[in-house]
Amino acid sequence: MSNEQLDQLRVKLDDVNLEILDLINNRAELVQQIGQVKEKQGANRFDPVRERDMLNLISKHNSGPFENSTIIHLFKEIFKAGLELQEDDHSKALLV
Amino acid sequence: MSNEQLDQLRVKLDDVNLEILDLINNRAELVQQIGQVKEKQGANRFDPVRERDMLNLISKHNSGPFENSTIIHLFKEIFKAGLELQEDDHSKALLV
Repeated sequence: MSNEQLDQLRVKLDDVNLEILDLINNRAELVQQIGQVKEKQGANRFDPVRERDMLNLISKHNSGPFENSTIIHLFKEIFKAGLELQEDDHSKALLV
Repeated sequence: MSNEQLDQLRVKLDDVNLEILDLINNRAELVQQIGQVKEKQGANRFDPVRERDMLNLISKHNSGPFENSTIIHLFKEIFKAGLELQEDDHSKALLV
């Protein structure tokens, strides 16, 4: 009984993992597009004010169970990965 | 023109951030439920084989732009946060 319940929860967890994967990659594509626009404008890719605004909006909408501190930590990791991706794109553009 | 484009992309990015937030919290709820079932079974909350299986499935479905190494890093952070949440639940249960 409990093992069946565990298997069902694990199937759901795998589904949610793959949904998160898709969204994280969708987000990365948006970040790449933003990077291209900023590149043309000669603007800096890292914008601490915009990052703070995004974190504020996310914290405001957080209904748990994760605490805001955990959510902010996870999103900072996601932001950092996005920034590194923009830097990679920039380096590749310079090499063309 | 470019600023309008940037604003539109940022609106999309905020939407995706909030979708990721919801899914990360949905995932946390599932992890809490799994923790409760395991608690009853007396099973260890951390299962490295299951974690490896989840990461393999995620990597298999990763179509980029993030590299597998980045995706694995981000999911390990998400897994760790979920495990800490289960530990908090366990400590609270012991205090009741």
